[in-house]
Amino acid sequence: MTGPSSSDPLVVFTPSGKRGRVPAGTPVLTAARRLGVDLDSVCGGRGICSKCQITPSFGHFPKHGVTVDEGALSAWNAVEARYDEKRGLNPGRRLGCQAQILSDVVIDVPPESQVHKQVVRKAAAVRAITMDPATRLHYVEVQEPDMHEPSGDLERLKAALADQWGIDTAGLEAGLPVLARLQPALRKGNWAVTVVLHTPREGGPSRLLDVRPGLHDGGILGLAIDLGSTTIAAHLCDLRSGEVVASAGVMNPQIRFGEDLMSRVSYAMMHPGGSAEMTDAVRQAIDTLITEIAAEAGATGDEIVEAVFVCNPVMHHLLLGIDPVELGQAPFALATSDALSLGAAELGLGAMNASARVHILPCIAGHVGADAAAVALSEEPYLSDDLVLIVDVGTNAEILLGNRERVLACSSPTGPAFEGAQISAGQRAAPGAIERVRIDPATKEPRFQVIGCDLWSDEDGFAAATAASGITGICGSGIIEAVAEMRAAGLLDASGLIGSAEQTGTARCLPQGRTHAYLIHDASADGGPVISVTQGDIRAIQLAKSALYAGARLLMDEMGVDEVDRVVLAGAFGAHISPLHAMILGMIPDCPLDKVTSAGNAAGTGARIALCNRTARQEIERRVGAITKVETAVEPRFQEHFVAANALPHATAPFARLRARVTLPDVGFNTAGGDDGGRRRRRARSA
Amino acid sequence: MTGPSSSDPLVVFTPSGKRGRVPAGTPVLTAARRLGVDLDSVCGGRGICSKCQITPSFGHFPKHGVTVDEGALSAWNAVEARYDEKRGLNPGRRLGCQAQILSDVVIDVPPESQVHKQVVRKAAAVRAITMDPATRLHYVEVQEPDMHEPSGDLERLKAALADQWGIDTAGLEAGLPVLARLQPALRKGNWAVTVVLHTPREGGPSRLLDVRPGLHDGGILGLAIDLGSTTIAAHLCDLRSGEVVASAGVMNPQIRFGEDLMSRVSYAMMHPGGSAEMTDAVRQAIDTLITEIAAEAGATGDEIVEAVFVCNPVMHHLLLGIDPVELGQAPFALATSDALSLGAAELGLGAMNASARVHILPCIAGHVGADAAAVALSEEPYLSDDLVLIVDVGTNAEILLGNRERVLACSSPTGPAFEGAQISAGQRAAPGAIERVRIDPATKEPRFQVIGCDLWSDEDGFAAATAASGITGICGSGIIEAVAEMRAAGLLDASGLIGSAEQTGTARCLPQGRTHAYLIHDASADGGPVISVTQGDIRAIQLAKSALYAGARLLMDEMGVDEVDRVVLAGAFGAHISPLHAMILGMIPDCPLDKVTSAGNAAGTGARIALCNRTARQEIERRVGAITKVETAVEPRFQEHFVAANALPHATAPFARLRARVTLPDVGFNTAGGDDGGRRRRRARSA
Repeated sequence: MTGPSSSDPLVVFTPSGKRGRVPAGTPVLTAARRLGVDLDSVCGGRGICSKCQITPSFGHFPKHGVTVDEGALSAWNAVEARYDEKRGLNPGRRLGCQAQILSDVVIDVPPESQVHKQVVRKAAAVRAITMDPATRLHYVEVQEPDMHEPSGDLERLKAALADQWGIDTAGLEAGLPVLARLQPALRKGNWAVTVVLHTPREGGPSRLLDVRPGLHDGGILGLAIDLGSTTIAAHLCDLRSGEVVASAGVMNPQIRFGEDLMSRVSYAMMHPGGSAEMTDAVRQAIDTLITEIAAEAGATGDEIVEAVFVCNPVMHHLLLGIDPVELGQAPFALATSDALSLGAAELGLGAMNASARVHILPCIAGHVGADAAAVALSEEPYLSDDLVLIVDVGTNAEILLGNRERVLACSSPTGPAFEGAQISAGQRAAPGAIERVRIDPATKEPRFQVIGCDLWSDEDGFAAATAASGITGICGSGIIEAVAEMRAAGLLDASGLIGSAEQTGTARCLPQGRTHAYLIHDASADGGPVISVTQGDIRAIQLAKSALYAGARLLMDEMGVDEVDRVVLAGAFGAHISPLHAMILGMIPDCPLDKVTSAGNAAGTGARIALCNRTARQEIERRVGAITKVETAVEPRFQEHFVAANALPHATAPFARLRARVTLPDVGFNTAGGDDGGRRRRRARSA
Repeated sequence: MTGPSSSDPLVVFTPSGKRGRVPAGTPVLTAARRLGVDLDSVCGGRGICSKCQITPSFGHFPKHGVTVDEGALSAWNAVEARYDEKRGLNPGRRLGCQAQILSDVVIDVPPESQVHKQVVRKAAAVRAITMDPATRLHYVEVQEPDMHEPSGDLERLKAALADQWGIDTAGLEAGLPVLARLQPALRKGNWAVTVVLHTPREGGPSRLLDVRPGLHDGGILGLAIDLGSTTIAAHLCDLRSGEVVASAGVMNPQIRFGEDLMSRVSYAMMHPGGSAEMTDAVRQAIDTLITEIAAEAGATGDEIVEAVFVCNPVMHHLLLGIDPVELGQAPFALATSDALSLGAAELGLGAMNASARVHILPCIAGHVGADAAAVALSEEPYLSDDLVLIVDVGTNAEILLGNRERVLACSSPTGPAFEGAQISAGQRAAPGAIERVRIDPATKEPRFQVIGCDLWSDEDGFAAATAASGITGICGSGIIEAVAEMRAAGLLDASGLIGSAEQTGTARCLPQGRTHAYLIHDASADGGPVISVTQGDIRAIQLAKSALYAGARLLMDEMGVDEVDRVVLAGAFGAHISPLHAMILGMIPDCPLDKVTSAGNAAGTGARIALCNRTARQEIERRVGAITKVETAVEPRFQEHFVAANALPHATAPFARLRARVTLPDVGFNTAGGDDGGRRRRRARSA
C-alpha cells in the first residue's frame, strides 16, 4: 500500500477539523477511519445501518483552504436511494459508506453519527457525558462451516470480527450462555449476525456478550444503579445514545435487618448466616427492580447487557457476598477497594442478559465508598479552581472537599433522619408526604405542600387535589424545612427546645410528656394522621445535622481552612432539600447562598458516566488513589465538632449575613438551661 | 546491584548443570533462582515449608572443575535444627533457603525438590509426565491494614505477592468466593496466608483460587476427567507431585436418553428441552463422582481446584450446555473447537472448590473431539518416526494415523457393543462379569474368568471365589474374546454364522429361533442367568468391528498406505481387550503382533498430562491445528470398507501369518449362502 499523493483529493472533516488526502474513489467512511474521525457504523459499511450519515458542504471554505464543487462526492447511488425510500434520509445527508470522495471536500459529521457523541443530562444539566461505551454492536458476515476445513462457529465468527472490524480477537472470551446461542443465531441470520461486544479498555481484550441474527441496531441497554442503604435507584440507559429510557427505585429490603449501616454490620456479627441473608435480600430486590425497569421501558431483560453499581462500602460488601464485619471495627479494612468487573451471573442477577457484565466503582476507604467515588466522578472536585465542598446526603453522608491541588473525603453517619426515618410522622418521599413547610413568623401558622400536588395547603383546591393521596406524613425535606422554619418563627430556641403555647403564643405548640410538639396538620377528624414535629424529631435532626456538619468541618480542618468557596449539594439534598433551610439549620458550613448549587443525584450521575464512558472508569480509579481519606469514626475532633454543632444555628460571620436575611429571632425556652430537652433537668432534680 | 565477580564462589547445580558465581553469603535458594535452577519453595524462603531441600556434595569434581571443602556452606542453623527436630530432615540434606554459599560448591537438587519433577505413570509406564501445573501454592506475609492509608486486603495481598514472589499482579483476578474468604483467612493466619494461584500460561495473568490461613503445604488437587458416552472416569491428582490419589468412574446417566451419540442428538432434536435435560444429568453425575472421589481420597471438595475434561464433541457440547443438534447433520459444525478455560461454577459443578477452574481440551472436528486430542497428547503420533495407528475404543472409536510428517484423525461410530451394551448377556465391566473366554478347539468347551477373581472357571475354588459376586453377564472384552474364540474353535464361519450342534459337534450350540446361540455358562439351576453368545451378538460385534476397521482403513487410504508400522491400542482396548483376539476378529488392520502395544486409557492419560503440565495444553492446541481431519460420515469409501470388513476375518498377507499361529478352521455353516444369519434365505424363499 502506497501513501496518499499530493494530487489525491483533500478531505476535511468537521467539527473535528481532521484532514488528509485519500485516493479518489475512497468511501467517506473509509476516509474517516483512516484519518481517525469519529464516524459511527454498525453494519461495517454495507449501507444497511445508516449510522454513518454525513453532510457534505459545497463552496469555498477559506478556513480550511478548500473549494468544494458539486461533484466532490460520487452521485447518489442505489443503496442510498433504497435506504431513503425505506427509512428516509434527511435532505443533504449521504451514507458515508456509499458516497465516494472524488475531489476536495468538506464533510460534516452530525452529532448523531458520532460514536463519542455527547449526552446532555436532563434533570440537572451541569455537564454533558461523552459517549464511549464499553459495549457496542458489530454486524458481521461469517463464513459457513466446511466439513473439510473443520473449525467451530465461534472461531469463524472471531475470524470475521478480526477481518471485517479489525478487532483483536486473540483474547476474545465467550461465556457459556452466548455459546449456547451462537449456532441458532448464525443459522437464523443466514450467517450474518450482530454481536454485542464488551471491550472495557480500548484496544484491550473483548468479551462476546450476545449474538443476534441479522442486522440488529439497538437493544443494548445498561443500568446505572445507586445502591443506597435505604433506597435502590436505577436508570436504564440506551448504550448507543446514552439516553435514559427508564428510571425506577425500590426500598432496600435490608432495612428489616437494621436501618443504618452499623446496625446491619451488627446483624451480620450477631446472626450466623446473617450476612448471606442480607446479600440474598438485596440481590433479589435488585433483580426485581431490573425486571420492573425493563418492563417500564418496554424492553426485555435480555437487552440489558451492562450495569454499573455505586454504593457505600457496607452495601458493596453485602452485594458481593462478603461479610461486612471488618467494616464495623477499626481499622475498617475493606476486603477489596479496587474497581471490580464481573459477570451479573456471579452476583446471581438473573433478570439481565445471562452474559451481562457488572462494573463496580472503586471504594475510597472503609467508610468512603464507591458512591463517593461516583460523586467525585460527577462533580470533579479535582478539576475545580476554587475550593469546593460537595455533600451527598443519604443514610450516610459522603463529603468531599478540594480543588485541583488536593481532594479530601470522608463519610459521616447521619442516620436516616434526613430521609424521614426515625421521625414521629416521618415517611419516605412518596405522594401524600409533606415536602415543603413555611411558618408565618407573625401568626406561627404553617402552610405546606405535599408530594404529587403543586398547590400550597392554604390555596384553593388543595383539599380536592390531595384527596386521592391524603396527607400521610412528612418526608426528609419536609422535616428539615419544618425544623428550620420553626427556628425562624421563634418556635425553637438555639438549643433546639420547642416552646410551650404560652412561650410561643400559638396553640399549635402542644404539651407532649415533659416537652412540646408543634402541630402541622391534624386530619384525625377524617380518620387521617396527626402530623406534628416532636421534641424527639428535633433531636434526631440535630444529631443528623451535627454529624453532617462535623464531617465537613473535619475536612476543612484537615485542609487548614475556615471557609469554602462554594458548596455543591447532592443526593436527597440537591433533589429535594432547600439549601436555604439546610443553611438555617447549620447542616452545612456557611457560604454565600449564591455559591451553593445543587447537583441532583450526583452518585447516580457518576454511575451513568461510568456506564456510558469506559475511559471515565479508568479516570476515577486513578483519581480515587489520589484522594486523601479522613476517618471520622476515630478522629477526636469529629466528636468535638459534633457536640459544638448541636445548636441551631451556630453563628459564624458568613452565616450572620444569611441570618440577617432570614431573621432568626433570639428566643430561649429552656428555663432550666441545657439543650437536651429536659433530660438534664431531670438528672439535676434527682441529683 | 553489581554483577558477580570472579572472586565470588562458584556454585554448580546438579542434575541441571546450571552454574554461576554468587556473592559469598548468598542462600542456596536465592542462588538457584538467580541461575534459573528449578528449586521448589512454598514459603518463599522462610524456612518453614522445607520444599527447597538440597544436598551439597563435597570433594573434587573433575567434571565440574570444582573442589568443594566442608565449609562451602554455612553451618547448620537454628531454623534447620528446629525443622529437623519437628519434622526430620534426611541425612546430608540442608534447607536451601537457610544454607548460605561461602565457597565453591556442588549442590544436588533431589527430584522431590523440583517443581518440574517427573511423574512416572504407574498403570502403563510408557512415558513420564513433567510437572508444570497451572495451579500452585504461595505463602505470603501481608501488610496489616492501616486506617490512615486505607486499601483493601486484596490489594495488600497483591502487593505482597508482587514483592515476595515477583508475581505480576496487575491482571490478577479474584472471584467472589475467594473474596468472601479473604478477610477471615488473613486474620486467622495472623496476616500470613498460603494462596492457591492459577497461572494458565507462564508469565501470563493469574487468578486467585483460594486463600488459606498460615502455611498450608498441600491440599491442591486436580481432576483428569474422561467424559465418555457410556462411562465417566476420573483420576484425582495431587497438583504438587502429580501422584494419582484416587480414581473412580460412574455410568453416564445420559444413557437413558440414548445409548450412542447419535441417539442423544436425536433426543435433543425431538424433545424440547431435551438438550438441557441431558446437560443437567451429566453435570449432576460429574458432581456426584467428584464427591465420591474426594471422599475416597480422604480429601474435601474444597481442595479440588482444577479439572481437565476430555470428551467427544457431543459430550463436549452437552457438558457446556450447547444443543448438539448441529453435530447430527452435515457439515457437523462445532459451536466452538478451541480449548476452553472456565470456572467450575459456570458448569454448575458445586462439589469442587467454588473458584475451581476447568480446562477442556480442543476438539479436532465435528466428530473428532477433545478425547482424540487427549489421545494425541498422550501418544504423540506427531513425534513418531514410524507410521503409527492409534485406536481408542469407546462407544465411538477415535483413530489417529501418522508420524512426524503428517497426522490424520477420524472418529468411527462403533456403538456400545465393545462396552458390553446391545449384547444379549452384556453388562458393563464390574465384578461378576465374564471378561476372559477360552474355547478348546477340540472339545468346544469354554472356560472363562470373571472380574474380581483371578481363577479360571475350570480351576479349583472358582465357584467359591465367585460366590459373592455371582456370574452376572459378559462385558466388552469378554464378548470380543468369546466371538474370536468361537471363530478359532470353528463354531463360526467366515460370515459370522453360528453353526448348529450337528455342524459344530457340541451341544452348547443351541437353536434359538432360526439361528443358534453358543452357551457359555448356565447358572439357572441356582437362579442365575444363562449366558450365551447369540447370532445377534455376533452381528453387533461384526457391525462394531467393521466400523472400527473401516475408519482405520479410510485413514490409511488418505495417507496412501496399505500397512502401518505399529498399532497402539487405547481405551477399553488397552485396558482389557486382548490384542490377539482383536486381530483375530479383524477389528484392526493387520500388523505384526509384536508391533501392537497397549497404551491403557490414553485419553485419560492425555487429560492427566494437561492437568499436570500447562505447557502441554498449549502444545496440543498447536498440534491439533495441524492434524488433518477425515469425516467418516460422508466419505463413500468408509461405507465400502465397512461392508468389506464384515467377514471374520478378512485375509491379507500379514494376517495370514497371524492366522497360521492361531489356527482358524475353514468352516462354513450357511448352506443357503449369504452371511446374514438366515434373513437372506428367507427373502430368497419368498421371492
